[in-house]
Amino acid sequence: MKLDVAAVLTLCFVVGACSDPTAKPPTAGAPSAAAPLTSWSQGAARSAIVDFVERTTRQGTPDFVPQAERIAVFDNDGTLWAEQPMYFQLAFAFDRIRALAPKHPEWKTTQPFKGVLEEDLQAVLAGGEHSVLRVLAASHSGNTSEEFEAIVTEWIGSARHPITKRPYVEMVYQPMLEVLTYLRANGYKTFIVSGGGVEFMRPWVERVYGVPPEQVVGSRVKVTYEVRESGPVLLRLPEIDFIDDKAGKPIGIHRAIGRRPTIAFGNSDGDFEMLEWSTSARGPRLGVIIHHTDAEREWAYDRDSHIGQLVRGLDEAPKRGWVIVDMKRDWRVIYPQPR
Amino acid sequence: MKLDVAAVLTLCFVVGACSDPTAKPPTAGAPSAAAPLTSWSQGAARSAIVDFVERTTRQGTPDFVPQAERIAVFDNDGTLWAEQPMYFQLAFAFDRIRALAPKHPEWKTTQPFKGVLEEDLQAVLAGGEHSVLRVLAASHSGNTSEEFEAIVTEWIGSARHPITKRPYVEMVYQPMLEVLTYLRANGYKTFIVSGGGVEFMRPWVERVYGVPPEQVVGSRVKVTYEVRESGPVLLRLPEIDFIDDKAGKPIGIHRAIGRRPTIAFGNSDGDFEMLEWSTSARGPRLGVIIHHTDAEREWAYDRDSHIGQLVRGLDEAPKRGWVIVDMKRDWRVIYPQPR
Repeated sequence: MKLDVAAVLTLCFVVGACSDPTAKPPTAGAPSAAAPLTSWSQGAARSAIVDFVERTTRQGTPDFVPQAERIAVFDNDGTLWAEQPMYFQLAFAFDRIRALAPKHPEWKTTQPFKGVLEEDLQAVLAGGEHSVLRVLAASHSGNTSEEFEAIVTEWIGSARHPITKRPYVEMVYQPMLEVLTYLRANGYKTFIVSGGGVEFMRPWVERVYGVPPEQVVGSRVKVTYEVRESGPVLLRLPEIDFIDDKAGKPIGIHRAIGRRPTIAFGNSDGDFEMLEWSTSARGPRLGVIIHHTDAEREWAYDRDSHIGQLVRGLDEAPKRGWVIVDMKRDWRVIYPQPR
Repeated sequence: MKLDVAAVLTLCFVVGACSDPTAKPPTAGAPSAAAPLTSWSQGAARSAIVDFVERTTRQGTPDFVPQAERIAVFDNDGTLWAEQPMYFQLAFAFDRIRALAPKHPEWKTTQPFKGVLEEDLQAVLAGGEHSVLRVLAASHSGNTSEEFEAIVTEWIGSARHPITKRPYVEMVYQPMLEVLTYLRANGYKTFIVSGGGVEFMRPWVERVYGVPPEQVVGSRVKVTYEVRESGPVLLRLPEIDFIDDKAGKPIGIHRAIGRRPTIAFGNSDGDFEMLEWSTSARGPRLGVIIHHTDAEREWAYDRDSHIGQLVRGLDEAPKRGWVIVDMKRDWRVIYPQPR
């Protein structure tokens, strides 16, 4: 059976499927600016980051970047939190279908919903892109932006990863939490630029990453403004408005930020253009790729993976001056300590 | 001749006409937080603004708003700077056509370009929406985002208003500069949410209003990512991507900010939905309408104006609790002192 699983899963991003209502955000370990990046091994990757930040924040030197121009962008899936065995937003979509199933008895016998309800991913994907879009449309639309926010908030606080059994917000990367904190302590404004749905991220990224809603760029569905008796709402429509992936990332950055980032972190070829756009601008620029090399503590995948595929990034990083982080070697810790 | 001039001029917003290369940004008068809003008369409008800010920033009181949630949004044309006798971005479009004319000898005999070159606005508008779109497409596309930024920067630094003969950046409102500074001093994050083109505003609003590019929401054309030998560019296409006006404003706010604003300032019915969306959210909210009542120092217009028409806002402000600023009575000064 031939299926472009990567394309299908990319689509899954846009609209945003496992649950235990006790999850709390992890303790980020509050790294200080004085002793930054303590979960990073002493090595070339850590040095490259620290050296760059020191160079760009030393007033009066050629590489100094004024604070207003210090923009750092981060992919989310596979860069700030894990993305295996499938994008966490797809897990959310599947859980939504299960939650909505009692109102749709026909789903028990109709694909792709039958596949979701029976946890048969192959059956879902057998219908190709069209099936995935039906799952996304059914799981991510028909509510208002505020209703959707409440649904995501409930899910992220209760759902558990199928393998680690941890809350998803505990599967963020401690070394990256430290990078976010370190950059902000040095006057960098941190943005998320993700293929994931913006409305799937905003309800929790401020608490977990310290990134406010207005600094989150992502894929999205169309919304329409509707004035009800109870007041105005933004109604989420079952139609994709923008996919913030690949060449969409520079476009998303341009629309939302309007400056070329000084620093860009990614992990897959979906981030290639974001790193290219950022690091080919004039002035000092830093591009970093997180390479998933740790099959024991996390996952190991790159060229042949259907999620987070990384080919061109590995091939071109050396000549483009991008830093490759070897997760196994460079990260002393993967996940934060649970509270 | 029947023409929906308002609709035509709304379209003009999207893509961004008069010039003297000596303009400098105005001195904003650097109002302090301690003595805020000194260009405002003592009166109900000023009191309403100051009382609201004091109420929402006093920790431990019922109306306290945490700093991360203090979002203030401002329309631009007619709210932060003047918009008569036509949107300044339309003046820019006309100047672009004049600058490009030597490469287009056919424009001398072809409408709507002939009309632009002969300064015959009626001839331009006689072709309706289609003509205006042709002017916008010709004047606002075909270049990269960085080329366009340079063009706007040159124009805003040299063009002069046809009536006042002042640089456009000196036709910003001093009382509103003070509001921006006052709000920021009180922990509010200030955003522009304008029907004007986002790429027409970003090159100068940081310097003039203190609003960085990532806090500017506006209308825009489509762009495409293209990798040239010299590096990647975003190419501006002659196609409208989004009009940030009327019901588009809450949508633009939702996409870019992701929170419902605490404070919203506008001046026309194009801002109605923005004020409605902001002030109907839970918690303390402030909606303000700048009413152009000063024919001597600025312009007086509202219900019958083809630019900045204000009908519903005037009718519904009292029952919605929105503050109406009477420019003639409430503003001691209109424009900043030129440098």
